[in-house]
Amino acid sequence: MGVQNNPYTLKRCAFVLDSSGIKENVNVVVERGLIREVGNNEDGDEVDCRNYVLLPGLVNSHTHASMIFLRGFFDDGELMQWLGEMWREEEKVSGEVMRISSELAVLEMLSSGTTAFIDMYFNPEDIRELSTKYGIRSMAGPILMNHKSADEVVKQMRSLGSTPLFSPLLNVHSLYATDLKTIRELRDALRGDEHLHIHLSETRDEVFQIKREHGLFPVEVIWKEGLIPYVHGVHLGWVTSWELNYLVNSRGVTHCPTSNMKLATGGAFPMREALDLGVNVTLGTDGAASNNSLNMFIEMKNAVLLQRHNYWTTRISAKDVFKAATVNGYKLLGKKGGMIEPGYVADFILVNKNSLYPLKADRVLSHLIYNSDRVDVEKVIIDGKIVFEKGLFTETARKLAERLSLYL
Amino acid sequence: MGVQNNPYTLKRCAFVLDSSGIKENVNVVVERGLIREVGNNEDGDEVDCRNYVLLPGLVNSHTHASMIFLRGFFDDGELMQWLGEMWREEEKVSGEVMRISSELAVLEMLSSGTTAFIDMYFNPEDIRELSTKYGIRSMAGPILMNHKSADEVVKQMRSLGSTPLFSPLLNVHSLYATDLKTIRELRDALRGDEHLHIHLSETRDEVFQIKREHGLFPVEVIWKEGLIPYVHGVHLGWVTSWELNYLVNSRGVTHCPTSNMKLATGGAFPMREALDLGVNVTLGTDGAASNNSLNMFIEMKNAVLLQRHNYWTTRISAKDVFKAATVNGYKLLGKKGGMIEPGYVADFILVNKNSLYPLKADRVLSHLIYNSDRVDVEKVIIDGKIVFEKGLFTETARKLAERLSLYL
Repeated sequence: MGVQNNPYTLKRCAFVLDSSGIKENVNVVVERGLIREVGNNEDGDEVDCRNYVLLPGLVNSHTHASMIFLRGFFDDGELMQWLGEMWREEEKVSGEVMRISSELAVLEMLSSGTTAFIDMYFNPEDIRELSTKYGIRSMAGPILMNHKSADEVVKQMRSLGSTPLFSPLLNVHSLYATDLKTIRELRDALRGDEHLHIHLSETRDEVFQIKREHGLFPVEVIWKEGLIPYVHGVHLGWVTSWELNYLVNSRGVTHCPTSNMKLATGGAFPMREALDLGVNVTLGTDGAASNNSLNMFIEMKNAVLLQRHNYWTTRISAKDVFKAATVNGYKLLGKKGGMIEPGYVADFILVNKNSLYPLKADRVLSHLIYNSDRVDVEKVIIDGKIVFEKGLFTETARKLAERLSLYL
Repeated sequence: MGVQNNPYTLKRCAFVLDSSGIKENVNVVVERGLIREVGNNEDGDEVDCRNYVLLPGLVNSHTHASMIFLRGFFDDGELMQWLGEMWREEEKVSGEVMRISSELAVLEMLSSGTTAFIDMYFNPEDIRELSTKYGIRSMAGPILMNHKSADEVVKQMRSLGSTPLFSPLLNVHSLYATDLKTIRELRDALRGDEHLHIHLSETRDEVFQIKREHGLFPVEVIWKEGLIPYVHGVHLGWVTSWELNYLVNSRGVTHCPTSNMKLATGGAFPMREALDLGVNVTLGTDGAASNNSLNMFIEMKNAVLLQRHNYWTTRISAKDVFKAATVNGYKLLGKKGGMIEPGYVADFILVNKNSLYPLKADRVLSHLIYNSDRVDVEKVIIDGKIVFEKGLFTETARKLAERLSLYL
């Protein structure tokens, strides 16, 4: 394939699937990182897509990429006990281990079809560099802790700067690890469309503690302090129904079903109610220490499984979770993406159709979501560029993994 | 590798893992389908295992292999509505479609490390043949329906006969689809260690209906009718605590977490209580129409996720589900298997250690269970014979899948 700014054609795709539906045997013309046409036309070089299902890339809306080094370290505790173990290990970790871990996470995410991710960890500079190196979209930024001032951390965030694929954000671990004074300083410092990424209402203990301390539920605190427009809230397994109304005006919410189940938080984000109110609901894997997978296909299935088990109904289906992982994820990033239509960013996954059987057009979405462990991602395209082809990173990942194991 | 009856050595396995623990850099000597030694000795031909984790094979203790043809056909109904759709389609299905579907299921199970499965469907003869053809262990048999007599069906079961890898069993769909007269005829006909495979207490509606009809809960009916010693009960999402005591003397119980969640049954088998009482708890994927995966690695993870979410504690861990899928599964089959110790059947999976990272001995089990979608099964050995090597069935599966798609 030639110069990426010139137009090219993903030709005769067996299926083109987004959350609005499926088309058979169509061409997708890409130009300057955007989708120009979907249909019969063609232009420029060709990528033969007769064996592929073309999908929008998946957005992992909440992760801690670097936690690869803690994968499998402590699997059997409930959240607060688990977090204690994590914090103790994190105090000892070197920059090198964080960097290798984040790189492994990027390779793992790309190879399973993730085209963008939102990160909360201590090495946002690494994430910015890895975005450029591998061509994956990301958001990351400093973490506000109580010993730092909000002004200082907002300044750090802004100094990270943007690249074509990277945008900075501000991380706040949680309300329970941040005092009200700092939250208010933050509100005064943030502006415009700045992005505040925060764990919210993850456990019943958190809700209890916040309610006792502030007299309000966690999302109510965020609302009362005027932070809703900036907020990207994560988990919300114990959010109340009335708090969902505030979240309609937030940037969005990320549901992390696997992590919530594995850490026995007992809660489940009320996804159906939130979608019906118009909340921008997205999905995330959380980090490799609590999931322990970074595969968004598995996460989509697990979202359906948890919602159905928790609410005793099938009211969340494959289409809902696919939309959450694509269009809604891109909306959270502030990008027009996640659909295969003219004008949307050219972020795609090409899945081998032979891994999906029996192959009928009306079952393709089901196979991708519900038989997700067999999904065979052959190519990943981001911003119009092919950034991954099957087998490409195998040796790189093996070497990084060996180095990482030596450090631990 | 030479003649399989002669001894051979799986040499210098990077890790040898069973539910009792892990060993590093050891040899496993196999002779006549059994493990002869585990340690430093060697004998006969060599299989270089320096890149592998050697595990016991996984037992899929409940599936409907042939339901591959219904994968993705109707995903969004609760159990009784879903079952209605399935039964309607099954009335129309040809023997050829069932045979192709079962063969695809066998290839899919082998390639993800399943070495034995217990099947409930209308084509037990196909399962017996596929066991011989591919070298996989299985149990299958006729399904007792109300228009057949129990004597007749038991006779059919016995006429299936055993092979070195196949044993017959008797399937009863459920108590709610079978009358009490037939159940009693069955009790009078069964003998010895015959195996009665039955869906039990899957939904609250079933429990309600059985209680109203019989004045007893489902497992109580089985107990009162004297069938407990034969029974292999499946699902039991709504079993009561007191019924668990009866199940201690059954052949075993199969928990199918994914299927229960996807069909929104709302229940979860009380796995911890059952294990503590001494019930032989195993795991199954259920069929491809309700899961939709047949991957037992994923099923082990999902068992942990469901148990932790349902009971708000982390009291089920990786080791419990690994034991359920290995030793307990073999016990259900009536085989001494599932451990890597002298005298046990030589049924193994060889996983590429490079797919597990960071690679530390005390994290290997965690990686296999919790990052299960990345597990890379390179070889499968059953009864001492290598029956699968990575990539072996790709073309066969593709052709079968194409034929299947044409029929639907």
